Amino acid sequence: MLDTVGDIEKVAVVMAGGRGTRFWPRSRAHRPKQFLAMVGDATLLNQTVARLSPQFAPGNIYVVTTEDLAAETRRLLPGLPAENVILEPEGRNTAPCLALALALIERQHPHGVMVVLSADHWITDNLAFHSDIDLASRHACGTHELVTFGIRPAYPETGYGYIETEGQGSVLGVKAFREKPPLPTALEYLQTGRHYWNAGMFVWTLADMRRELQAHCPEVLEPLDAWVAAGANPAAIAAAYAQLPKLSIDYALLEKSKNVAVVPASFGWSDVGSWPAVVEFHEPDAEGNVVRGEAVLVDSSNCAIFGGRRMIGGSGLKDLIVVDEEDALLICHRDKAQGVKDIVERLQKMGRKDLL
Amino acid sequence: MLDTVGDIEKVAVVMAGGRGTRFWPRSRAHRPKQFLAMVGDATLLNQTVARLSPQFAPGNIYVVTTEDLAAETRRLLPGLPAENVILEPEGRNTAPCLALALALIERQHPHGVMVVLSADHWITDNLAFHSDIDLASRHACGTHELVTFGIRPAYPETGYGYIETEGQGSVLGVKAFREKPPLPTALEYLQTGRHYWNAGMFVWTLADMRRELQAHCPEVLEPLDAWVAAGANPAAIAAAYAQLPKLSIDYALLEKSKNVAVVPASFGWSDVGSWPAVVEFHEPDAEGNVVRGEAVLVDSSNCAIFGGRRMIGGSGLKDLIVVDEEDALLICHRDKAQGVKDIVERLQKMGRKDLL
Repeated sequence: MLDTVGDIEKVAVVMAGGRGTRFWPRSRAHRPKQFLAMVGDATLLNQTVARLSPQFAPGNIYVVTTEDLAAETRRLLPGLPAENVILEPEGRNTAPCLALALALIERQHPHGVMVVLSADHWITDNLAFHSDIDLASRHACGTHELVTFGIRPAYPETGYGYIETEGQGSVLGVKAFREKPPLPTALEYLQTGRHYWNAGMFVWTLADMRRELQAHCPEVLEPLDAWVAAGANPAAIAAAYAQLPKLSIDYALLEKSKNVAVVPASFGWSDVGSWPAVVEFHEPDAEGNVVRGEAVLVDSSNCAIFGGRRMIGGSGLKDLIVVDEEDALLICHRDKAQGVKDIVERLQKMGRKDLL
Repeated sequence: MLDTVGDIEKVAVVMAGGRGTRFWPRSRAHRPKQFLAMVGDATLLNQTVARLSPQFAPGNIYVVTTEDLAAETRRLLPGLPAENVILEPEGRNTAPCLALALALIERQHPHGVMVVLSADHWITDNLAFHSDIDLASRHACGTHELVTFGIRPAYPETGYGYIETEGQGSVLGVKAFREKPPLPTALEYLQTGRHYWNAGMFVWTLADMRRELQAHCPEVLEPLDAWVAAGANPAAIAAAYAQLPKLSIDYALLEKSKNVAVVPASFGWSDVGSWPAVVEFHEPDAEGNVVRGEAVLVDSSNCAIFGGRRMIGGSGLKDLIVVDEEDALLICHRDKAQGVKDIVERLQKMGRKDLL
């Protein structure tokens, strides 16, 4: 079988509930980042699922999203069995999301390995990606450890969590999880060779996940177990879900467990976390400008124009990112992309649901 | 009569053929600057004509424009006799424009004084404006000099021509016309108290204008005289007009005549020559931002947003002017507004008539 490594059955759980407010005005409540072709011609969700084929059979690929995004998620993934789209009544961070998937699918895959992925990340070098997944799967089955992929830092990012590893070889031990560091610390981490970005991609057996969740975070697991035991009635999930704490799987599980290993990724990865990150995927012209759509730039450099139907004229511009949509326009300095979230918050406070 | 100073009959000639490419994307070929409410609630053309009332009777106000702008000009000025809109087949600078007006109206106003104005300038203090016009009119009738209004420089503008005056009093002599100066020279002019901006507003008797044009620029006058003598057939004007050199009235007449006087303006004036000039007419908020339409600005200062139907979000912006239209968007650094002309030229080369 294609979806096994030796005797191991692999099951992918793709988390696809993200809102992506950092990509306003292109991303909206009903059109989050995973539904957009931020990089390449297909949506990030479609690329994520396509990347799993043929190593994962369609029936072994699950996508977890929220109810409001269900229709579009299914529309984008016609090759996926409809029941493989698992619906959260609302987003409550990654621990409830993954516990829900576990509770719903563990009976079909009692000896399976769960490969946890995000729907809105970019990954390159598919051979390396699957080779790393297979290595992690074998390690998880052999040791019963929770495996997380570590990304070798490319620059001193202060917005990610880091994992400080120990040991040598293709699978490393964890010395500590490190919160988002200030810049001097991030610069240090860049030098050590032992610190990796925590990219939120995991491999573990379903049985180990249950055991560890039960040990470290029963409050996330038990309401879901009760709901499944009562028949997993979709009408009753909201009540069960509302009891769950909003916790990340990193905090609820990884940072508490003693049985965690790191596989340093040999594939290329980006969380495509902001407009400047998207710009990096485009080849600039001689002036450093990236133009999609129509623009006439005079005396301008290092700008990125993601145009729409409109002609965009620029004069004397530097280091700007422009995103033009029918009903809204963003102009953002490259170094001030975090302000996009503030704009969205201001629109929320203004009650401008039409623009969110 | 309202439109006389003592015995003097005043006739206004408003030049309204401008294209205003510096206001793209709001200004277009069919919607030049004088048709726009760049400052205030009425169009600059309407403000210019309204400013003449009641001192000038509607029948004594002429507006010269090009044939392609005739319909809109008449639509905007329903109080003006239709025949008072004088049509050039094409714009050939100000000397042909004013010679055409002279040739067509001099018989109705044989003893009149012509007050030459631009349709797309901003003027404030109407009492002072009309008092200056009356002073200039009396001077023109009494001395047979060509009178030009001098604007006291407010800053070292390098884009205007200057008049170096001599003498004292409310009417000055001309020592020299000075071309657009480099900045050090403009700074000097600012200090002397003798240099004035040449604002292109003139007062002269129709008879003196004919005499001086005949002396200094007969090639502009004679083809029009021949056309009028042959019956002023509108169908034949294009042929007559095509023979005329493209000359400014400053170059063709003022700089050559020995009979020129300057009345220093006591009214406020702006040629509203660029987007930054328009910004000056708006009160900025505490961050120095001017917003028309809807915008959410985060960490941004000294920007001007002239929005349209769209919400505009900005983050980390400084010193930008944004003009949003349905089919085109301009983003321009405040100090690089001259680039707007370059954008329009590039669009012309691209054959994008739909955007011009």
